[in-house]
Parts: sequence; C-alpha cells; structure tokens
Amino acid sequence: MPPADHRAMEQFAGVDIGGTVVKLGICNDEGRVLARSSVAFERAARPDEMLDRIAAAVVALVADAGAVRACGVGTPGQLDPERRSLRCAINLPEWKDVAIPELLSSRLGIPVVVENDGNCAAWGESRAGAGRGARTLVLFTLGTGVGGGIVLDGELWTGAGGAAGALGHLVIDPAGPVCGCGQRGCLQQFASATAISRRFGDGSADAAFEAARRGDADGTAAVAEACEALAIAAADVIHMLQPDLLVLGGGLTGAGDALLLPVRERVRRHVRVTWLEHTRIEFASLGGDAGWIGAALIAAHSVSPTS
Amino acid sequence: MPPADHRAMEQFAGVDIGGTVVKLGICNDEGRVLARSSVAFERAARPDEMLDRIAAAVVALVADAGAVRACGVGTPGQLDPERRSLRCAINLPEWKDVAIPELLSSRLGIPVVVENDGNCAAWGESRAGAGRGARTLVLFTLGTGVGGGIVLDGELWTGAGGAAGALGHLVIDPAGPVCGCGQRGCLQQFASATAISRRFGDGSADAAFEAARRGDADGTAAVAEACEALAIAAADVIHMLQPDLLVLGGGLTGAGDALLLPVRERVRRHVRVTWLEHTRIEFASLGGDAGWIGAALIAAHSVSPTS
Repeated sequence: MPPADHRAMEQFAGVDIGGTVVKLGICNDEGRVLARSSVAFERAARPDEMLDRIAAAVVALVADAGAVRACGVGTPGQLDPERRSLRCAINLPEWKDVAIPELLSSRLGIPVVVENDGNCAAWGESRAGAGRGARTLVLFTLGTGVGGGIVLDGELWTGAGGAAGALGHLVIDPAGPVCGCGQRGCLQQFASATAISRRFGDGSADAAFEAARRGDADGTAAVAEACEALAIAAADVIHMLQPDLLVLGGGLTGAGDALLLPVRERVRRHVRVTWLEHTRIEFASLGGDAGWIGAALIAAHSVSPTS
Repeated sequence: MPPADHRAMEQFAGVDIGGTVVKLGICNDEGRVLARSSVAFERAARPDEMLDRIAAAVVALVADAGAVRACGVGTPGQLDPERRSLRCAINLPEWKDVAIPELLSSRLGIPVVVENDGNCAAWGESRAGAGRGARTLVLFTLGTGVGGGIVLDGELWTGAGGAAGALGHLVIDPAGPVCGCGQRGCLQQFASATAISRRFGDGSADAAFEAARRGDADGTAAVAEACEALAIAAADVIHMLQPDLLVLGGGLTGAGDALLLPVRERVRRHVRVTWLEHTRIEFASLGGDAGWIGAALIAAHSVSPTS
C-alpha cells in the first residue's frame, strides 16, 4: 500500500450532535483539523433523515480530505452502558433508542462509535487541547446547561452504568433552584448561561458579563454567583479526585478572564494550598471543535487503543 | 523451601495509627485475620518511641502467627505524594515529616509502606470486606471526622498530589458551619459524630440516635441532618463517578438501619433511578479492623501487584 493511502487511513471523522446543529469534521489521530462542516436541522427532524444527512456530510468531507478509518459521534442525553444506542435526550425529542453506531456504520461502511458529548469534549481536550500532557483531567462544559467529562490516568471514566461525569448535577446549595433532575441547587442552576441570564433578569449571560464589566449590580451579582458555584464544584472535584487539570469549556468561556480569574481566586478560598498546588485550572483550547474532535479521537482510540 | 515457609511468607502485618491507639495485626493476602493487638499511647508521645513500641508489637505478633513478608501502615494526616513520610497530622501533633517506611523498615527488617488511613480502609473493604467483587468503590468513614477513600477499577485512587479521597470536605451547604479546612458547610460539619453531637446539644452521637429512636425532636433533627448531608455527598459521588459500590464505614455505622435506611431513601430523592441503579449503598463489613487489614493488603499489593 503506498504511503499516501496509509496516511489517509490514520484520519478519523467526528460528529457532534447538538440541539439544532450538527458539527462535524475530519482530523488526524493527533486531532489536527483537516476539514470541517455543519448541518442545521429542526428539532422535529426524524433520526433516520438526520442520519442520512450526517452520512452525506461525512462523505462530502471525505471527498475533500481523504478516506477515514472510523467515525465517532458525540450526543447529548443518555446512552446505554454498552454504547449501542441513544436512549433519550431532552434536546433531541425525536430520538428514542436510536442505534446510532449500527445505523451510521451501515451508511458509511466504516466502524462508528458513540459517546456522551461531555465525554467527547473531555477526551478531545485531553488528547489535542488544553489537557495535552495531563494524565488526569476533569472538564466542565458551560453552555445552555452544564455538562462534563472525566479522563483518569489517560482513559475516559464512564462509571458503572456509563453515565459518570454528570458534573452539572453536583449540589452547590441545597436551598437553591429546582433542577430538571429533581434536586435543588445543582451546579447548572447557577453556572449555565440559562442560570446567569435568569439571575441577571435583563438579557443573556453575555449581557450579564457586559453589565458586570460596567459595574452594574445585577450583572455583578449574577456573575459572582456563577463563579462561586463553579469554585465550589471545582473544590468538590479537587477534594475527591485531585486531578492534574481542571478545564472550563463551553460557550460561557467567551467571557474570558472575567470568568477564569474569579473562579481561580475563589477556588483558593475553598481548597488549602497543599491540596490545590497539584491542580491547574485552565480554559479549554479547542473551542466549538472540542466535541467532534473528541468523538473522532475516541473512534481512533477504539480501533487502536494506543492512540 | 518447605511449603509451610512459603505460606508464612504470604502473611502481612498491618498497622493503623489513630489519635490515641494503634491497632495492628497479621493477615494473609486475602485479609483473613491471623492475629491482632493494640498499643495505647499519649498524644505527646515522640514518634521514635512510638515506632519502637509499634515494632515491638509487630514482632510479638510474628512470634505468635509466623513471619510476614511486608508491613503496611495507615496514618491520619498528610503524606508526601511519594509516600516516604508523614508531613503532619492534626491528631498526631508530635509527628512532623516522619519517614515512617524507612524508620519502621529499619526496625523490622522487612519492606514497609505507608498510606492514608481512609485509603487503607477503602482498600481493605474493597479486597476483603463489603467491596469484594466490586471494581469501583467509594468509602465514607464516619467517625470523629469524616474521611474517605476511592478504589477505581481495582486500584487505589490517590490523585495528582496523593491527597484524593478527602470526602469529608465535599461542600454540602455553603451557608453551613465553618470547617477546620476553611470552607463552610463541609460534609464533616454535618455527618461526623462531632457534628451530630453538637447539633443534638445533649450528649454523644449515640445519644442522638437513641433520642431519635424515642421520637425526641432534637435527636430526630440531628440524625436527619446527618443523613441528608450524606445523601447529598453520595449523590455528588454518583453523579461524578457512578461507582459500583458506595460504602459507609466508621464508628457511626453502629447506629445500623437508623443510619443506612434513611441515607438510601434520601439518595433516591437526589439521583434519578436510571443513574442510581448501577450503584449499591452498603455498610462496611470489616469494622474496626478495616484500617490495619487494608494497610496489610496495600503492603501485599506493593510487593506483588496481582494480589
């Protein structure tokens, strides 16, 4: 086989299914981006139709960037422990017990693996992003909700039932707002874009950060509450696991130092320096590509566990 | 070498250093107890003197139960990440940077390893106690304070700096009582014997459970607060790691079903059944021997990682 073909076989496709858009791309086994695209869809779209469009988009990318050896798919919601199907997802109301790997593999003719989207982002950051070189990484994804993913000693930690890393449901304040999960005061009731916007009461999370920058009291309070909740969650993670690296990702990180610096400062109030000194707190570095790159690299790892 | 000697070499000594008593014993590599004893001491006792007495007690046990291949020591407080010395421990004020493995190995003539006492108990329960057969176990030790230990995929998880498993410092209520660590509302401010006694206001934690049994309002409130705090901490652990098994150990488990049943019931209010169904919640089964047995089995694992 000529070298060019061999190189092509070390490329992987990644797909990140969101609530209204699918991001996808092709990268090499180190996460270098070779091609990317996206597919917009309606929430009411049927899974079969969606998988047809996703498969067509992957085929179009392959025509540009060359063949891929396998494809990884990241989805929100709950997967079965064996990763054969997506059981359900709040943001994908039409998807019930959809055997994504089988259905997409039959369309593409290559192996397909599926993983939770927070886990994909954590794996992507650990292999190709902010976590390169870290053995152990815990990622918080701060978006409409709060998700997460955990990489321990270089392997994704999915837990006994495949649902570990649900960091948005760490309890911050047992007297806090009720969460969709049934608990009160979950992290995502304080540190999601939704929660910041609700607390601010006068626009989006971005608007809250902007108002805080101007010295507005409501904006300042909304941002401070989110940062303190994140600091408590980070302290819980550090006391429990003491990872090398704690990564903040997701859309909210667009706020930059107005988010990162107060979180770091508040974590120092919660965790003694002798405990804290082994854990760095950083922003994710792959931005909106983390999900699909991570999915592609999980596919790479599944066909060749040393990668 | 005759078979009898070979068997003797598969025995291990374990030492559990507490605030005023050292428990120790000899067990085989499956944790079966062959001999045990204890050494009482004053808090002001010097480490050198204490290590002399511990070594003499191990030698006396060996005279009874036969030779041991290695010795494990569990201690409270903070170890250096490489497990060469005990840096400091609140309950052992005279112990500062004490190279326990080196100092005890020179007295005993066998390899000595040291580990945090909560980690020893978690390892003991995972190998010879309630956690037999579980791949992943998280232990809460409920005593004067609250400690813990984590076994992931059959290996002790100590984290980047060796201090992981500090479960007593999970934040339960950010408006709660100040903890010695500097945070507010740590688990051990609600679910330790000290905290229950303080909340009850009229005697020990045992007295609070007894009062609750009689229907006394203060006793009932103190016990309910402890159980709810444990349920929140358990929910945090399950959302983060989804272990096979969550174990409650330490002196407080003497309360029996008055502790275990409400904790299980309250966890069901915090964690959805599809998340919770993969995690059992049980009491520890090694009682006061968990620490030294776990230390002995850590020593066994260190000289023969398949055990």
